[in-house]
Amino acid sequence: MLKLYHAEPLANSLKSLIPLKEKALPFESVYVDLHKFEQHAPWFVAINPEGQVPVLDHDGTIITHTTVINEYLEDAFPEAPALRPADPVGKARMRFWNKFVDEHVMNYVSMHGWHRMVGVIARSIESGEFEKLVDRIPLYEQRLKWRTARSGFSDSDLANATRKIEVSLDKVEQQLARTPWLAGDTYSLADINYFTSCAVSVVRMFLEKKVEKRAPRLVEWIERVRARPGVQAALSMPDRTNPALRTFSGHVR
Amino acid sequence: MLKLYHAEPLANSLKSLIPLKEKALPFESVYVDLHKFEQHAPWFVAINPEGQVPVLDHDGTIITHTTVINEYLEDAFPEAPALRPADPVGKARMRFWNKFVDEHVMNYVSMHGWHRMVGVIARSIESGEFEKLVDRIPLYEQRLKWRTARSGFSDSDLANATRKIEVSLDKVEQQLARTPWLAGDTYSLADINYFTSCAVSVVRMFLEKKVEKRAPRLVEWIERVRARPGVQAALSMPDRTNPALRTFSGHVR
Repeated sequence: MLKLYHAEPLANSLKSLIPLKEKALPFESVYVDLHKFEQHAPWFVAINPEGQVPVLDHDGTIITHTTVINEYLEDAFPEAPALRPADPVGKARMRFWNKFVDEHVMNYVSMHGWHRMVGVIARSIESGEFEKLVDRIPLYEQRLKWRTARSGFSDSDLANATRKIEVSLDKVEQQLARTPWLAGDTYSLADINYFTSCAVSVVRMFLEKKVEKRAPRLVEWIERVRARPGVQAALSMPDRTNPALRTFSGHVR
Repeated sequence: MLKLYHAEPLANSLKSLIPLKEKALPFESVYVDLHKFEQHAPWFVAINPEGQVPVLDHDGTIITHTTVINEYLEDAFPEAPALRPADPVGKARMRFWNKFVDEHVMNYVSMHGWHRMVGVIARSIESGEFEKLVDRIPLYEQRLKWRTARSGFSDSDLANATRKIEVSLDKVEQQLARTPWLAGDTYSLADINYFTSCAVSVVRMFLEKKVEKRAPRLVEWIERVRARPGVQAALSMPDRTNPALRTFSGHVR
């Protein structure tokens, strides 16, 4: 029995929802309401001590971190459609990209998202209440990120994040000039990772950067990923984002 | 035919030398002299555009990044002794730790190493020559790191790095109270990762922190890892470190 604790079909939650849908694995969906900070509530921290979504529960075994969850689904359900290349070199290419996205892209896109969205939430909370909410966040880095979202990320940090995102756009564009998918000839977890961590939101966030001209192959690739039935199914999961915050998170569906 | 481009049996180079020795895979060793900045020389950048060691060449296919290289060796040589748990949950535990070490430990230990060792090298080079050497470094982050090593890392960055290392010591100590190895019952790439990225140097660097008292299981685990013939063989590879810099890099052998 599979259970996924997740939030809206965006970013990290989307990253593990897509493989479940692509592989057609039945699972119980448990919605964790980030608007109510449920990810830091005692009941959830008892499941994931890091207080982060998504979390996979497979017959009581808890797996955390999307890149780890997604490879776990490959290992645990080898009979389901594969999202990992069959050959060792393909697997290495997939992991190279996963590492790049996890270490050099995801947190920088996230910073812009937090700047635009979470900052609004954080500033709407009265100081005493805010400190109480932050104090129960398990991870030091997440406490720091919430406090920074409230006071505002620095211009130099935001500029560096934009630079990192642009490096990734060019790097992906170059790869797509050589191979149809990031890890080579087959669609893989690497495509799902860059799509959910960066591509799907960056075109919305950085429309002024004219991604279409800078990275036309990337734009075409986004449409190819988005058109997949498994991706469509994941994107169609309920989105309870506060409509006032949809500028970042939502496209009209 | 396997070929490994690597430097001294320390840190990243050691991290991929150990699996090759543990798996008893014959390979050609190509020494890249970091003292001469060979990792940024045109001949090497032609092999790895990121200008970083180690690099695996398997019959002409280039694999970079130690975590990726090490899983590649598991996939490409399934008949050699396994360094990855056989079951899906064990693999997920191994990848959880690899991610933690790669994202939250390695760079922070590295900062202290650079502060103590690379800073000495960087400051010994005349400014004009230094800028010429830095300008040919492919990765932005590495150029920044060399410049910062020369001018000196800030006290707050070094303190944060120490905090991250201490978090990792406690986290590993807690895990070793539950299982003999990081990923569970079997020695794996996760043990090799924390050993080479942190444990082997941190006891030398932070002796004043009394790691022995704070993390006795970790100290015992270090000895268990170090005693393995494959680890011994990797640690016995030639070490050409400038003796004046051995305070960080070397133990007397």
